[in-house]
Amino acid sequence: MTPTYDLIVIGSGPAGEKASMKAAYYGYKVAVVEKTDEYGGAGTNTGTLPSKTLKETAVYFSGYDEKGLFGVDKSLDRNADAQDFFFRKNQVVDSQEQSIEDNFRLHNIDTFVGTGSIVDAHTVKVEGETSQELSTRFILVATGSYPFHPPGIPFDKEFVHDSDSILHIKRIPKSIVIVGAGVIGCEYATIFAYMGAKVTLVNGSDEILTFLDHEIRDALQAKMESDGIRFLFGNRVEEVTILPHEHEDNVHAILTNGDPLEADMFLYAAGRSGSSSGLGLEALGVEITKRGSICVDNCYATSVPNIYAAGDVIGFPSLASTSMDQGRVCVTHMFGLHGQEKISDHFPYGIYTIPEVSVFGVTEDQAEEQGIPIVIGRARYADSSRGKILGAKEGLLKLIVEKHTRIVLGVHIFGSSATELIHYGMSVVENRETLSNITSRVYNTPTLHELYKNAAYNAFIAGHYLDHPTGH
Amino acid sequence: MTPTYDLIVIGSGPAGEKASMKAAYYGYKVAVVEKTDEYGGAGTNTGTLPSKTLKETAVYFSGYDEKGLFGVDKSLDRNADAQDFFFRKNQVVDSQEQSIEDNFRLHNIDTFVGTGSIVDAHTVKVEGETSQELSTRFILVATGSYPFHPPGIPFDKEFVHDSDSILHIKRIPKSIVIVGAGVIGCEYATIFAYMGAKVTLVNGSDEILTFLDHEIRDALQAKMESDGIRFLFGNRVEEVTILPHEHEDNVHAILTNGDPLEADMFLYAAGRSGSSSGLGLEALGVEITKRGSICVDNCYATSVPNIYAAGDVIGFPSLASTSMDQGRVCVTHMFGLHGQEKISDHFPYGIYTIPEVSVFGVTEDQAEEQGIPIVIGRARYADSSRGKILGAKEGLLKLIVEKHTRIVLGVHIFGSSATELIHYGMSVVENRETLSNITSRVYNTPTLHELYKNAAYNAFIAGHYLDHPTGH
Repeated sequence: MTPTYDLIVIGSGPAGEKASMKAAYYGYKVAVVEKTDEYGGAGTNTGTLPSKTLKETAVYFSGYDEKGLFGVDKSLDRNADAQDFFFRKNQVVDSQEQSIEDNFRLHNIDTFVGTGSIVDAHTVKVEGETSQELSTRFILVATGSYPFHPPGIPFDKEFVHDSDSILHIKRIPKSIVIVGAGVIGCEYATIFAYMGAKVTLVNGSDEILTFLDHEIRDALQAKMESDGIRFLFGNRVEEVTILPHEHEDNVHAILTNGDPLEADMFLYAAGRSGSSSGLGLEALGVEITKRGSICVDNCYATSVPNIYAAGDVIGFPSLASTSMDQGRVCVTHMFGLHGQEKISDHFPYGIYTIPEVSVFGVTEDQAEEQGIPIVIGRARYADSSRGKILGAKEGLLKLIVEKHTRIVLGVHIFGSSATELIHYGMSVVENRETLSNITSRVYNTPTLHELYKNAAYNAFIAGHYLDHPTGH
Repeated sequence: MTPTYDLIVIGSGPAGEKASMKAAYYGYKVAVVEKTDEYGGAGTNTGTLPSKTLKETAVYFSGYDEKGLFGVDKSLDRNADAQDFFFRKNQVVDSQEQSIEDNFRLHNIDTFVGTGSIVDAHTVKVEGETSQELSTRFILVATGSYPFHPPGIPFDKEFVHDSDSILHIKRIPKSIVIVGAGVIGCEYATIFAYMGAKVTLVNGSDEILTFLDHEIRDALQAKMESDGIRFLFGNRVEEVTILPHEHEDNVHAILTNGDPLEADMFLYAAGRSGSSSGLGLEALGVEITKRGSICVDNCYATSVPNIYAAGDVIGFPSLASTSMDQGRVCVTHMFGLHGQEKISDHFPYGIYTIPEVSVFGVTEDQAEEQGIPIVIGRARYADSSRGKILGAKEGLLKLIVEKHTRIVLGVHIFGSSATELIHYGMSVVENRETLSNITSRVYNTPTLHELYKNAAYNAFIAGHYLDHPTGH
């Protein structure tokens, strides 16, 4: 019997959406199974898009970055409440969901609302209002991840939150304890600090975001501290109790070192696990890690033929951007299509703190470890024309340059619009361009992209390239 | 006798500043002559920086682009007056002037306040509080440009302005007639429209900004019209009269077709001339065009040995960005240095309207004229995640792609942050990258740079590249 579908995708987040669209575009018959009636997964509903929209809202409401800049007061004439705070997020999420749904319809993709599970390598069972089995040539598991819940923490979704439930709070906390100074923890810390909450960030190790260039990390941490965020390093939360109503604070926590900590709200943001259980994968022999991540090869194939997995459910790097490409690459391999046979080995990392961080390529520390002699070029936002217009007090673009070739190996940016600004640098690094390639181009003025030219000139000076500025 | 200086630069705008810094950095003895005590020329004082800062102020005060976006009203609680409007501009200009002055001091560059003129190829006369002659090996004329004043227009700097005096208005006009729909005219038209003025734009030809891709031009014009800007094409202003005080409007104009036009203020923004007269250049035999532009060769040398010219005073393209590089290149040739021996043949063009326009490379029309078969890829801001966060109703990124090679020949952007966004596209075009190069990269999400990927996929579809998406 001919299978009903060429591809059934379980999950409609960034990986599932792009995979199903691509397969459908190439003429294959595709179905998508989504357990809620909300399309878009964490990319749209709980992760990427909502938190980035909240960041914009926090910047807008606080007026913080504009204070004194224009010489007039344009602050809100009342305190923003949670309804205000989530208004824009809800609009953006709804609009994105609608776009995805429209796209499914446009591409003649069948959608099923219900819980999907895998009966065998060619059969998916959907349990929703009714229960049915669908036959298919290929299956893609793109079920994403869920927040890790350690024992001993009473997640009540009112006072004690994970990174999903925090998106549904009914009021803005006066104070909040955030556990985990990873990307999610740092992003929410800056958002809540801008909304006026007293923020305490508890972190097991002594450093935030250890994969960052140390100078960029230090600049971010200094800015967070100057915005009133308190860091408690080398500490974990041992126990969390929700206090009775008569207390001023709602949550009481005890740290590893015995110190107590009280706050209005509590956010546990230390890790997520792959949503791989309940799909029947174990019974079929699909390899899964302890943290629930599905093991895949370079083609995103699991250990069982015809079953693929992509997106957050396979673990690192768990970025919407890479998940989309994994979905596309996966379809290329299933159907033997040409083009985009692997995702780029290197990708930009964007952190949507206030202000943003974005990096691509080698860090100063990595160059040192690898014994590569380097020269560093720096440009500060405050010294550039565009930075002056923005009133940027902080902000740094840092180039890591191979000393003898003057080839740019890495770009590290801390400051406004860093997540946009990195892409030109990505192209410079990928094309193995030199400092002279950067300085020989004309940049629009005033723009932040002039920072590249300023940093390149700074590297010329730092490298004593005075006599032969064109290089070898 | 040894000359006192290696280089004397007349004018401290973008060309003069960068030239003097570079020469001083290489150890040459440099003097800068500036006729006012304000450093920075049009780049800092009357052109680039002030108008771009006013653009940001207009966007901020109007709150126009945010209305309804965040669900709360954060408009100004009173009407902004001209003092508010210029507060930020003055801050930014002062800060930039101070930076330039500090930089001169740091590089041991002597500065002279006064009017410079050229006695012979090795002597500059400075007339300020005192008068003195300075001897030098080389002279760079970087005196910029001034607004062209046609006969019959009574520029009183109160009601009738040119593009310099408009920066010193004491109140925001209720209505304004702007003559000339070039870059300056269009930029001020959108700024005043956002500040609530009724704007009429009078233009001799039937089109604005004729060098733009027609689709981008049409999109900008449609947005300007929807913001209430009225266009009067194929018309010139024949006569302008300032009305007596009892009239409601202050300025009365008569168009070529006989129609009358009344307005609160009048801005003539149709052309600038090179500031080449009074320098003694004619007597020395330096070639000058009718519009006052000094003629130079590829090294920015004039027809008289040892005298160079760069920046707006040599005419096209009269951009701060290209002027800076002209200044640097000029110094390379004077002193036989290495590196940066010419400025890039191709440069991005940035127009700071609201929203912005920026373009690089071949337009659709140029490709057609040259008989190059092309494919077009388009991405609309409103369809992208970042565009949804910004609430962008307009905005378009357009790729011009050579049909048989899939090489990207041109990038044309209309929308928020276009002047930043173009630089990645410049690198794509310069490196002769294909659509596959664009789609194979991972972009931060949500960012506007994803528009490149979306436009590239759109071009794949438009070009029927379905079967062999990797190209030939």
